[in-house]
Amino acid sequence: MAFPKRVRLVEVGPRDGLQNEPEAIATDTKLELIDRLGAAGLAHIEAASFVSPKWVPQMADHREVMAGLTRREGIVYSALTPNLKGLEAALECGVEEVAVFGAASEAFSQKNINCSVAESLERFAPVLERAQEAKVRVRGYVSCVLGCPYEGEIAPAKVAEVSKALFEMGCYEISLGDTIGTGTPLKAKRMLEAVARDVPMDKLAAHFHDTYGQALANLYAVLEEGVAVIDSSVAGLGGCPYAKGASGNVASEDVVYLLDGLGIQSGIDLDALAATGSWITQAIGRPNRSKVGVALSSR
Amino acid sequence: MAFPKRVRLVEVGPRDGLQNEPEAIATDTKLELIDRLGAAGLAHIEAASFVSPKWVPQMADHREVMAGLTRREGIVYSALTPNLKGLEAALECGVEEVAVFGAASEAFSQKNINCSVAESLERFAPVLERAQEAKVRVRGYVSCVLGCPYEGEIAPAKVAEVSKALFEMGCYEISLGDTIGTGTPLKAKRMLEAVARDVPMDKLAAHFHDTYGQALANLYAVLEEGVAVIDSSVAGLGGCPYAKGASGNVASEDVVYLLDGLGIQSGIDLDALAATGSWITQAIGRPNRSKVGVALSSR
Repeated sequence: MAFPKRVRLVEVGPRDGLQNEPEAIATDTKLELIDRLGAAGLAHIEAASFVSPKWVPQMADHREVMAGLTRREGIVYSALTPNLKGLEAALECGVEEVAVFGAASEAFSQKNINCSVAESLERFAPVLERAQEAKVRVRGYVSCVLGCPYEGEIAPAKVAEVSKALFEMGCYEISLGDTIGTGTPLKAKRMLEAVARDVPMDKLAAHFHDTYGQALANLYAVLEEGVAVIDSSVAGLGGCPYAKGASGNVASEDVVYLLDGLGIQSGIDLDALAATGSWITQAIGRPNRSKVGVALSSR
Repeated sequence: MAFPKRVRLVEVGPRDGLQNEPEAIATDTKLELIDRLGAAGLAHIEAASFVSPKWVPQMADHREVMAGLTRREGIVYSALTPNLKGLEAALECGVEEVAVFGAASEAFSQKNINCSVAESLERFAPVLERAQEAKVRVRGYVSCVLGCPYEGEIAPAKVAEVSKALFEMGCYEISLGDTIGTGTPLKAKRMLEAVARDVPMDKLAAHFHDTYGQALANLYAVLEEGVAVIDSSVAGLGGCPYAKGASGNVASEDVVYLLDGLGIQSGIDLDALAATGSWITQAIGRPNRSKVGVALSSR
């Protein structure tokens, strides 16, 4: 056991959470959410997605969001940029970090971004080149690392292969996504061990969904392995598109409660974060999927 | 790490779950629930509570429940018996296992059972004597092992002291209850280590509530220590009486999913269990608090 002393949270609620809403959320609400998250101590916030509004209408206001941010010192506001067109638009908005989105599953890659895994990596090459030229950091997501809604089991070696490719192309960090939340702790450890042979542990992040309630147990298991970056979503915003009514991202509040209990620093004010979760879920009329949020707000 | 090969689940939904319902559930519904749970492979079901109907009207039909059971071979149907009067009534119903309920917190003991911890142990002595005479096994619960709603932190030494006393009085197993769900994994491990100095590990059970979403992570941590008995409640039945709207018992389905993923045998058919969770929550008009249950039923 070698727990990290400090963990960095990457807050994905404004993007991964809100992009799954059936109706687009008002830009002002998004901006207030991002600002409140920053005030609560979240130092890395994924704020928008520069994908085509044809595919993700919920993120069509990406320019307005990036331009409307009240930037706080020390906070990274990042955006998803699946292609060169998205990157150029993000750069025009002064983005300082972007992310590309690959998959460890061939079937998921085909259904989600309409090309093979190898083709997706080819498409990312010019994005990474242009970002490097503009001195903008690129984060790499790998989805389906612990299971795929179409293929089922995914070999750890496949996750390692895609992670390595993204890392070697220049991604400074690889976020390993259990997109459908089917992982369990030992499986998560084995996957991580496979990837860590090719990408240093301190360049890896855990992005776990809580669809089967396993996210915190899985996070605890990979924290034991030394993972020190965790993606999460305030109030667990964002359901699972593959199972109606089921949970998506692990809730940031629940992760911070876990870290606090383990004596791991995150720099986050849990009460302020929980208040933000209560506010946004009321604002958009969604259930609060953070158990910590519900417990604290009903004390 | 020394995971057990097999874990025994103690299903507390019909008792710990339903006793927190605002309205008593029909006896027939309880009986069908118990029968379905047995059919799904639960081999230890806490079926009723022989407390005064004045205090827990939801359990007033304890005689009808115990008498109405369709007993399946190999299944233990137990009942809570806080005092000699309750035990005698349970014995009349042919109960083969009972449980007594102590606390590791003085304040909780006073507020919950109106006496000090030491006094509660004295009261249990004749219950244990009479049960031994009748050749009925007694399980001992210790509540507030990871925190108290009135006192806050509870010293592991206090948990160990109460556990040891119950074990020495003749309880064959001690169930360690995180009654308000405030525990986190390292805290759970430390508490368990303290208790295991006085009571053998194979005589200990983990009874964790999911109020703060930590239950599965805590269970994973104590499984690493060798705990091989887990209390849980189908569909997470039973809210937390100390925080409105918050979760109570960890959901049996989520525990079984975790165990299956860790390669630990439980003898439980997850699909049958999840179907039981869907059925009972619909029958009593409650949300299904098992994430596995929700995910499986929406596939």
